[in-house]
Amino acid sequence: MDARNDTPLAYAEAHGEEILQELVAFASIPSVSTDPAHKTHIGEASEWVAERMRRAGFEGVTINPTAGHPIVTGSWLAAPGAPTILVYGHYDVQPPDPLEKWKSPPFEPTVRDGRLYARGVSDDKGPMLIPLKTAEAFMRTDGRLPVNVKLVIEGEEEQGSAHLGEFVRAHAKELTADFVLSADGAMWRPDEPSVTVANRGICALEFAITGAGKDLHSGRHGGGVANPLHAISRLVASLHDDQGRIAVKGFYDDVRPPSNAARAALAELPFSEERYFAAIGAPGGAGEAGYSLLERQWLRPTLELNGLWGGYEGPGTKTVIPSLARAKITCRLVPDQEPKAVTAAIAHHLREHCPPGVTVEIHSDDGHGSKAYAIPEDHPGLLLAERVLKEVHGKPSLRVRMGATIPIGLIFREALGAETVFFSFSTADEDYHAPNEFFRLQRLTDGLKAWIRYWELLGQEGLGKPAR
Amino acid sequence: MDARNDTPLAYAEAHGEEILQELVAFASIPSVSTDPAHKTHIGEASEWVAERMRRAGFEGVTINPTAGHPIVTGSWLAAPGAPTILVYGHYDVQPPDPLEKWKSPPFEPTVRDGRLYARGVSDDKGPMLIPLKTAEAFMRTDGRLPVNVKLVIEGEEEQGSAHLGEFVRAHAKELTADFVLSADGAMWRPDEPSVTVANRGICALEFAITGAGKDLHSGRHGGGVANPLHAISRLVASLHDDQGRIAVKGFYDDVRPPSNAARAALAELPFSEERYFAAIGAPGGAGEAGYSLLERQWLRPTLELNGLWGGYEGPGTKTVIPSLARAKITCRLVPDQEPKAVTAAIAHHLREHCPPGVTVEIHSDDGHGSKAYAIPEDHPGLLLAERVLKEVHGKPSLRVRMGATIPIGLIFREALGAETVFFSFSTADEDYHAPNEFFRLQRLTDGLKAWIRYWELLGQEGLGKPAR
Repeated sequence: MDARNDTPLAYAEAHGEEILQELVAFASIPSVSTDPAHKTHIGEASEWVAERMRRAGFEGVTINPTAGHPIVTGSWLAAPGAPTILVYGHYDVQPPDPLEKWKSPPFEPTVRDGRLYARGVSDDKGPMLIPLKTAEAFMRTDGRLPVNVKLVIEGEEEQGSAHLGEFVRAHAKELTADFVLSADGAMWRPDEPSVTVANRGICALEFAITGAGKDLHSGRHGGGVANPLHAISRLVASLHDDQGRIAVKGFYDDVRPPSNAARAALAELPFSEERYFAAIGAPGGAGEAGYSLLERQWLRPTLELNGLWGGYEGPGTKTVIPSLARAKITCRLVPDQEPKAVTAAIAHHLREHCPPGVTVEIHSDDGHGSKAYAIPEDHPGLLLAERVLKEVHGKPSLRVRMGATIPIGLIFREALGAETVFFSFSTADEDYHAPNEFFRLQRLTDGLKAWIRYWELLGQEGLGKPAR
Repeated sequence: MDARNDTPLAYAEAHGEEILQELVAFASIPSVSTDPAHKTHIGEASEWVAERMRRAGFEGVTINPTAGHPIVTGSWLAAPGAPTILVYGHYDVQPPDPLEKWKSPPFEPTVRDGRLYARGVSDDKGPMLIPLKTAEAFMRTDGRLPVNVKLVIEGEEEQGSAHLGEFVRAHAKELTADFVLSADGAMWRPDEPSVTVANRGICALEFAITGAGKDLHSGRHGGGVANPLHAISRLVASLHDDQGRIAVKGFYDDVRPPSNAARAALAELPFSEERYFAAIGAPGGAGEAGYSLLERQWLRPTLELNGLWGGYEGPGTKTVIPSLARAKITCRLVPDQEPKAVTAAIAHHLREHCPPGVTVEIHSDDGHGSKAYAIPEDHPGLLLAERVLKEVHGKPSLRVRMGATIPIGLIFREALGAETVFFSFSTADEDYHAPNEFFRLQRLTDGLKAWIRYWELLGQEGLGKPAR
């Protein structure tokens, strides 16, 4: 059925079952990027994507090798005068472990209760298929797209997009676009449409505290020598003050206080701290005084220990003063904080506060650094996303932020000067890094409707006339 | 050669090579108490000991079963009017691991450079053989012992003497003695004779800090919830003040300040902090302000973390806020401190200081508790030991203490009302819990000479006339 005289939306609706079956086929490929055993499946998935791009009508479809997994590109640029968008997504998935917790096998996609269960359906195969099917719907009905579209679909998102930056910088000319429309990301809640307008950056650092050259008997030696476990505890405790504020000199130097507008917007969001703590099974909150929980998670930087260890961890008692204690730290950063400057400030603090009788050795993992990202609040692509979501869902969408780090916003801004609008139809509760990942079938329908409408309006109105 | 007309000392000297060969045979039995695979060797060693007791002339020699390994007892009580001593030692040994670090196999005793190398030769088979051979020397020359002797040789010292207390309490009547002469223990230094007059007690406690019910993503959640690694660090840091003093309310309640005499005695000991730190490879000291290093190790109680852990310990970065953090603590106690009271004070402190957003769970290992032990400074058995050591070595011996814990002093005092004189010829540097354990052959000769002289003088002078 080639419904050329129909609308793109009618085409998408008529082909709903077929699109679902395509997602089932796509999600059956175990394209786990972090596991070398799945290298052939990565190849298979990249070819599946390239083939779907070609079928949708994209041109110059290429599977670009990188030092890691390939990046699939293609474009349709026959809408002179219309805006050019770069659509981002990824075809790789998280490992499925622990396998025994899956109710149906992770790579045998199964529909239950209006949800499709399989590894990768929500992150990002379902959301990523939507722009491909959107393009197909336009091509099979109008014979053209309303906007110019470039596609960048990578295979290493679950590995921190290790080679994407290099690739985008090397192909900056071909990839130039007015802005990026990302099929990756996630809505905050199943019951409220939302757009994510910011995410925090990250920097990482490890350190080791060494006392004596070997483990010592804590009876014979205890009292005479420094215990690295005491020393590391004092050091870790010194990183925050009694108000939960980070006590590292210089840490907040580049941090602007959150604007009243941003705080007011957060205060208006429907959010119950009580329900949040119940959901994560925590006895209550903690953190920087003077800020609400959402402000602390979205607007303020953090310094968190991710690991801390030394000495005896087995059953019973071992009377040892260990030679070594270690700790791992990551910080979440807000706009204007430089990852390297922050790790340097922490390293300086650790050296300055190192107690007597031990030495500190610091390893900054600068390769892991990434700045925070926030799209300008009046970006026309963002305003259009909100307008479309309101049309599709019948109510205004929420502007939310993300405490975690998504490097692509910064990568595209720095390489192409293009901002990123997150327009994913995944939802944060869809267990995408856990067993029994699922994608709501309704989101597939909603997503197609929204992407079609988005391209339509963007083609009609261009970038000059955003309206809320 | 049965040299009945010779002196006990001449007998011992004439049989030196034979005694060494007996120690070689004894040390060839791998009587590792902590490893069930060696159960038959434990049996073999207990029979070896019983047989040597019988040959030496002891009566009523019995291998007493316990819920753990057997305790070998025997006695010779035909010296009416003379003091009665209880001789303590043990036939079990530490595990030999790591095997690859031994220059000769741990259970093939080998002489090199005036030392016998094998697991257990110093702790405690060599020192323990000395009283048996002392008895034999008297019996084969004088036909009798100068004092009444009861023997208690256990097989679980390396497991914390788990069943000794119960056994001694159950047999208190038969084991009654004026005091205990222990063949276990160790001299402080190879170049200075010494007697150990005190050791510290111990108590143990573990605790766990729980935040959320599961590990959380430190990006999404960081800032909003308590991090158990921060909480445990603050708690551990709160256990000591800036002066290295333990900040737990009530911890020092029963601690008497060290006497000026005790401090002066320590100050006179030949001890170089610099050489000590060089030996253990530490950059310098740390600990309670106002006390010298030896005072802190011997006269003052301590609170030491033996283990501390939570979160991710692998390579690279994992952005997790762990649900759980844990710590293990042992304290070394000085006289009058009650292990249970100290663990209760620490538990109270941990509960009082537990930061918001986490819960603390405490497990006191009261079975591991043991009070400190110190022999009265004018105990006649102690004074006699010092007199004999001076005779044998030609110079005064040092009075030293031990930071570690030896439960037997308390066990015998509480069950029998008898103090313990440590009269071992092991030396603290003989690697007895490490590979290549050795026993100096000179110490075997010196030890026989000293034990023979000790029994001789004790028989001649009794307990009433100690003299220095």
